Amino acid sequence: MNADIIASLRFDGAGLIAGIAQQHDTGEVLMLAWLSRESIEETLATGQVCYFSRSRNALWRKGETSGQTQRLIEMRLDCDGDAVLLLVDQTGVACHTGRRSCFYQAVRDDQLVETTAPLVEPASLYGSKSAL
Amino acid sequence: MNADIIASLRFDGAGLIAGIAQQHDTGEVLMLAWLSRESIEETLATGQVCYFSRSRNALWRKGETSGQTQRLIEMRLDCDGDAVLLLVDQTGVACHTGRRSCFYQAVRDDQLVETTAPLVEPASLYGSKSAL
Repeated sequence: MNADIIASLRFDGAGLIAGIAQQHDTGEVLMLAWLSRESIEETLATGQVCYFSRSRNALWRKGETSGQTQRLIEMRLDCDGDAVLLLVDQTGVACHTGRRSCFYQAVRDDQLVETTAPLVEPASLYGSKSAL
Repeated sequence: MNADIIASLRFDGAGLIAGIAQQHDTGEVLMLAWLSRESIEETLATGQVCYFSRSRNALWRKGETSGQTQRLIEMRLDCDGDAVLLLVDQTGVACHTGRRSCFYQAVRDDQLVETTAPLVEPASLYGSKSAL
């Protein structure tokens, strides 16, 4: 990763930047997760999206367990470098609930409404593991 | 805001949640900013998106200075309640640089490339002020 890109990234106190995954052709926003410098470098090097799991404090190679990988189409930075937009090609579902997108709860008439049903059984993705 | 919605939101240590603004009809991801409980309540009550500015430590009524407001179409929560997707109708441009979207820098061939030019002069949006 060249120096201009590194200099443009503004990591937070924990060394992370918010990453938004968007399906490149449909525009669907799939999920928000966190990126470390190392995960950004790996994502750019491999073309497969790698996040940083705050709960596990480790690199999170999306789909490593579930097979629901994200192929990077293009990485974009926002104007002040503290957020990254990942245009991806999502294999299967992005959400650990088995839904395509994590953003399936809508606020309608002051109630939470589920906008989509799971496409696959979560158990079929993981067995006993819990991370996508 | 009803108790189910409040209980579903997972604010971070600073009392904030990441908010992604997406143009509701084109799917364009416009920006990422932060939401406090108060800003979420105001957004739902008024139908105009209100963020929380970390730099000013205050509510940030998007477009109050620039006129580039975001009308809320629908608010969505992700599966674990620590990110919010705001489907909006953006008036004018979302970015303080005068571009429609803040995500205008792409990583291509290990270089940062600007994908769009400003649509308006930033000075025309603010005069001497700097926040959108």
